[in-house]
Amino acid sequence: MGKVIAEMSMSLDGFITGPTDSAESLFAGVDRLHQWIYGLASWRAPHGLEGGETNADDEIMAESWQNTGAILMGHRMFEHGEEPWGDNPPFHVPVFVVTHHAREPLVKAGGTTFFFVTDGVASAMEQAKAAAGDKDVSVAGGANVIQQLLRAGLLDEIQLHLIPVLLGTGTRLFEDTGSDPIELECTRVVASANVTHLRFRAAT
Amino acid sequence: MGKVIAEMSMSLDGFITGPTDSAESLFAGVDRLHQWIYGLASWRAPHGLEGGETNADDEIMAESWQNTGAILMGHRMFEHGEEPWGDNPPFHVPVFVVTHHAREPLVKAGGTTFFFVTDGVASAMEQAKAAAGDKDVSVAGGANVIQQLLRAGLLDEIQLHLIPVLLGTGTRLFEDTGSDPIELECTRVVASANVTHLRFRAAT
Repeated sequence: MGKVIAEMSMSLDGFITGPTDSAESLFAGVDRLHQWIYGLASWRAPHGLEGGETNADDEIMAESWQNTGAILMGHRMFEHGEEPWGDNPPFHVPVFVVTHHAREPLVKAGGTTFFFVTDGVASAMEQAKAAAGDKDVSVAGGANVIQQLLRAGLLDEIQLHLIPVLLGTGTRLFEDTGSDPIELECTRVVASANVTHLRFRAAT
Repeated sequence: MGKVIAEMSMSLDGFITGPTDSAESLFAGVDRLHQWIYGLASWRAPHGLEGGETNADDEIMAESWQNTGAILMGHRMFEHGEEPWGDNPPFHVPVFVVTHHAREPLVKAGGTTFFFVTDGVASAMEQAKAAAGDKDVSVAGGANVIQQLLRAGLLDEIQLHLIPVLLGTGTRLFEDTGSDPIELECTRVVASANVTHLRFRAAT
């Protein structure tokens, strides 16, 4: 049985996107937070690109790709991504989208099929786990889905790629996790030039 | 010439205190975030206590104490602390309090004198730097003072002691740093069992 792991690039002040008042400013923040990733071999390969850097960051990314058997995401992330991801999205595994809008599964090239789940995040997680089998379910975001999973105790691990920038505004990853403290255990820290990879296990 | 360094224990979701609706809940959060520190030899010594642990966390703390020539803090931190710190506060260096209330310097035992600066944070910083000489000015908080210093470009470094807990509510360290991104450089990461020490230099 695999794990459920949420994995996000986050600014030091806790944001995972830029200001939400326009798609442009939102993506400017996202882009800044993912600068560390675009040059990596393990990011380029699933996007159909050759070459790239192989370093400590690349090992972290490669590990994630290798362990992922299914992906869970919120509907806004899907809506923002559907067009730029194109006909051969970079996931290459089943993707479960938590949404209010029922829709037939959307089969793409390269192993990515989007399934639209309308009966809540817990149901979507059950389906994603079944699809992942022995591999992990990777929660790709956004913040709202991760907060729901945290409150429901449905996350096993969180991996944050902490970026040394204060964005000042945007979408906070941990905005609404409830008023009871949630204790985590830091299980791994890998620091490189532009990012610190922090891995946490939910205390049980 | 020393550096200006802000040093805070912060939860993974960015809080440096518990909920602000009561002193009790506020301090419950502060207490959780400082659990890692109370057993250390380098924390006990300035509090007049013997013994304590000597480990990687202790080295980080000892380094801070050794390098600090003066402290700068906000008036709320002073007001909350004045009574519990007692007649021999744990600072043992001049402390500059940014406040609107003029007051004569308050001389305590053990080398701590509180100076009350009413003409703004930049002036307080000038005075703290002069008092620190070749040593560092340590900014002890709270969040508001650190945000003012960040916006004014008056911080050289930030050291965060990142605690693996989501507090959910409280005072955010980086709440109001302006809408322009502030780039930092991560210069050191030291991970131990209960805390990750992250040191940043302000990009210049």
